[in-house]
Amino acid sequence: MAPDLKSFYKTVDDLAEPFIERLRDAVAIPSISAEDERRADVVRMGMWLKGQLDSLGAAMEARPLGAQPGKEHLHLPPAIIGRYPAKKDESKRTILVYGHYDVQPASLSDGWKTEPFKLSVDDKGRMYGRGSTDDKGPVLGWLNVIESHQKAGIDFPVNLLMCFEGMEEYGSEGLDDFIIAECKPGKFFADADACCISDNYWLGTEKPCLTYGLRGCNYYSIEISGPGQDLHSGVFGGTAQEPMTDLVRVMGSLVDGDGNILIPGIKELVAPLTKEEQSLYKNIAFTMDNLYESLGSKTGIFPDKESTLMGRWRYPSLSLHGIEGAFSAPGAKTVIPAKVTGKFSIRTVPDMEPQEVDSLVYSHVDKVFKSLKSKNTMHCNLQHSGKWWVASPKHWNFTAAAKAVESVWGVQPDLTREGGSIPVTLTFEQATGKNVLLLPMGSSTDAAHSVNEKLDRKNYIEGIKLLGAYLHYVAEEPMKTS
Amino acid sequence: MAPDLKSFYKTVDDLAEPFIERLRDAVAIPSISAEDERRADVVRMGMWLKGQLDSLGAAMEARPLGAQPGKEHLHLPPAIIGRYPAKKDESKRTILVYGHYDVQPASLSDGWKTEPFKLSVDDKGRMYGRGSTDDKGPVLGWLNVIESHQKAGIDFPVNLLMCFEGMEEYGSEGLDDFIIAECKPGKFFADADACCISDNYWLGTEKPCLTYGLRGCNYYSIEISGPGQDLHSGVFGGTAQEPMTDLVRVMGSLVDGDGNILIPGIKELVAPLTKEEQSLYKNIAFTMDNLYESLGSKTGIFPDKESTLMGRWRYPSLSLHGIEGAFSAPGAKTVIPAKVTGKFSIRTVPDMEPQEVDSLVYSHVDKVFKSLKSKNTMHCNLQHSGKWWVASPKHWNFTAAAKAVESVWGVQPDLTREGGSIPVTLTFEQATGKNVLLLPMGSSTDAAHSVNEKLDRKNYIEGIKLLGAYLHYVAEEPMKTS
Ligand SMILES: [Zn+2]
Ligand SMILES: [Zn+2]
Ligand SMILES: [Zn+2]
Ligand SMILES: [Zn+2]
Repeated sequence: MAPDLKSFYKTVDDLAEPFIERLRDAVAIPSISAEDERRADVVRMGMWLKGQLDSLGAAMEARPLGAQPGKEHLHLPPAIIGRYPAKKDESKRTILVYGHYDVQPASLSDGWKTEPFKLSVDDKGRMYGRGSTDDKGPVLGWLNVIESHQKAGIDFPVNLLMCFEGMEEYGSEGLDDFIIAECKPGKFFADADACCISDNYWLGTEKPCLTYGLRGCNYYSIEISGPGQDLHSGVFGGTAQEPMTDLVRVMGSLVDGDGNILIPGIKELVAPLTKEEQSLYKNIAFTMDNLYESLGSKTGIFPDKESTLMGRWRYPSLSLHGIEGAFSAPGAKTVIPAKVTGKFSIRTVPDMEPQEVDSLVYSHVDKVFKSLKSKNTMHCNLQHSGKWWVASPKHWNFTAAAKAVESVWGVQPDLTREGGSIPVTLTFEQATGKNVLLLPMGSSTDAAHSVNEKLDRKNYIEGIKLLGAYLHYVAEEPMKTS
Repeated sequence: MAPDLKSFYKTVDDLAEPFIERLRDAVAIPSISAEDERRADVVRMGMWLKGQLDSLGAAMEARPLGAQPGKEHLHLPPAIIGRYPAKKDESKRTILVYGHYDVQPASLSDGWKTEPFKLSVDDKGRMYGRGSTDDKGPVLGWLNVIESHQKAGIDFPVNLLMCFEGMEEYGSEGLDDFIIAECKPGKFFADADACCISDNYWLGTEKPCLTYGLRGCNYYSIEISGPGQDLHSGVFGGTAQEPMTDLVRVMGSLVDGDGNILIPGIKELVAPLTKEEQSLYKNIAFTMDNLYESLGSKTGIFPDKESTLMGRWRYPSLSLHGIEGAFSAPGAKTVIPAKVTGKFSIRTVPDMEPQEVDSLVYSHVDKVFKSLKSKNTMHCNLQHSGKWWVASPKHWNFTAAAKAVESVWGVQPDLTREGGSIPVTLTFEQATGKNVLLLPMGSSTDAAHSVNEKLDRKNYIEGIKLLGAYLHYVAEEPMKTS
């Protein structure tokens, strides 16, 4: 164990109540980035965070990000960036950490059992409140690490660079350009040696994990149109070619019920499974019951854990999300929709180049539509694209974090990937050119984005220890090039 | 020509301005049956109509229809029924006419060029206003016929029974039971010899028509569900069987782009085309340009008029209306919908029995879903069913109407069917056991249910003559059993 950790851990335990009070104060600010009328609360939350870090002696700045694209009357909340200690110690490594201080919408009427913006701790130590686990708990984790070192009188092991944003739950508007600019030589984040993001979750509830991969996402729309306006099926049924008829046929050609992507060439882009990688899945703490519980049913594709984890993490998937322009309300309306837009997306993995995926999609959809010999008109478009990300889990950034997990939790962490995307991960990797580690604090049952979001007291307190221990082990790791 | 028609026609022409004023007064009452807050206006319209007929000496009654199903705090507007002359002349035929005094919603903000509830006559004699053609113009037609006979001093040729409702645009709630009850022996409509409904439109703009057939409609939903709640495609894509994937495949198995119904057995239920029927289509006043104009495109199924008219009138069609429960908004949401409900309907024709259609649909959908070997759950349900209707155009009710068209317009009317349904038609046929004639007043460009609904002055005034002439020719037709 790194020499100072024992007294650091004890200090965290001693300060547990004030640290929970700090989380209570943060949860009380309804910093909902998706709701225009809450924008002032988001800004208030950012300034509260800056104030807390100012008091701890960090050198903080609230950087304006300009007007919100498409809503020019609204200012984006500031990026809260800073450095601790305030003056760089050139003998130490520099770690750039990221988190977000905005939250998803929440209201009692959605089905919350407690007030969403009032932290409510139950007798099992579950701390309910919007933002508790996503992402106010982890962000405050870094503050609590700093305060614990000060109270314990332990030298801070690294130079900490911080980047906290207030628009993550609304597409991180304005952040990418800011990060790229501030990673340029001579700028605020220029000297980061590695990055750490605490904004995801354990795979289950018992075992911590380090996350080294994310799938990408290419989102497409297929628009088919014909008549000049919606038609009445009594008058036109049987005399007009109907866009919906074409669309369900094109959508039906994309994927089968077992998730096999039917677009020729897609499977061939996927990096082959190596023996080494295959062996990793067996030991991951995950069961089919975990899947069935989170699904709320037994309608999984695979019967076994390994195939399920590979299906989520390392193979692409294609989901049909819905149709815009058709009749979608309850009831029975006899409309022939004139223009319908089918939406689907492909989760991408190594080595799928997004542009290659695009051309395979376009040429397949074109071919299927042409085969229908329809008089209607079809356009297939990419709505957005985010690339997959995979880091090396053998980098010192990961080995340090693994040692920290062992020190705090007494187990080797699972090395996991995720099926979804956290786009800022790739931005940090590309802008810094350094290794990025995803180091989650919360567990799979935390219900981020859902009603009754919570963070377990144990995950919070041990999570603070974990973040601090990680910084100590990072300081000890031998220097190698990333 | 029946002896008294000349002076009747002249009187109608002389009274044209007061008749247009009467329509203006009716249009000014916004009797929108679909809007709860307009219910008082619907009732006011019904009572205004009753008042007008009372003044003309008819024996009128406003019959309550009870509370509105599902909205028990609202009373249904009354059925306005009556008889003219007030005392039955046993030597004359009795004709039951139907119309509705409620209208579709309308507001300037929908794109109306004039105030929808203010009749606005332009320099081409187009009388714009909500309800002008659907169905206040035709309803007032009957009143104007009565008044013209009185002013001209001509004996009224038949006993007229009237049934005017105020919920037609909202499903005719409460009316079916009322009609059936009042057609029983000894009741109000018991002695009808034939029925006439003026609530549809010419096929084009130049030539009047008599309508003797309507398609039916069986409306179905296919519900497919699996997961306990909507899922995130990043987390579950590639590991869960997705209901949308199954649904587009089942929907794609129902119909092809040329409108061919792919459900085995459906085509075999359709009455074969006879040589005699086939020869009727050639002379109908309809062109492919009429179709393209109303479609707003050239995406028709057939290149020729005859196939197009048969596709609309005498063959079944299947339309896919949309999907409930999937993502249907603009934008890009990465949801895997947990439960999706596809909606489709089949327009039915002779000799398709609705229940036979149901069983063919259920067994096909079951078979296709089973072939997918999905773990999801599927239910296919009938949402509503209305049967097709075909009357004999050789009945004296039709031959009388044809003579009236020739007398007023100088042409033989087209004998047409319609692709949509007017459910009350079948109710009158079944309840009275007598022939029902659909005798339209307005033309295909009247835009009923749309913005800028209008009735041409010429169609209104000549239409009044037509309704009156019809009653005279009905009186002259030799008695045969229907
Ligand atoms: Zn987050
Ligand atoms: Zn989030
Ligand atoms: Zn109508
Ligand atoms: Zn109508």
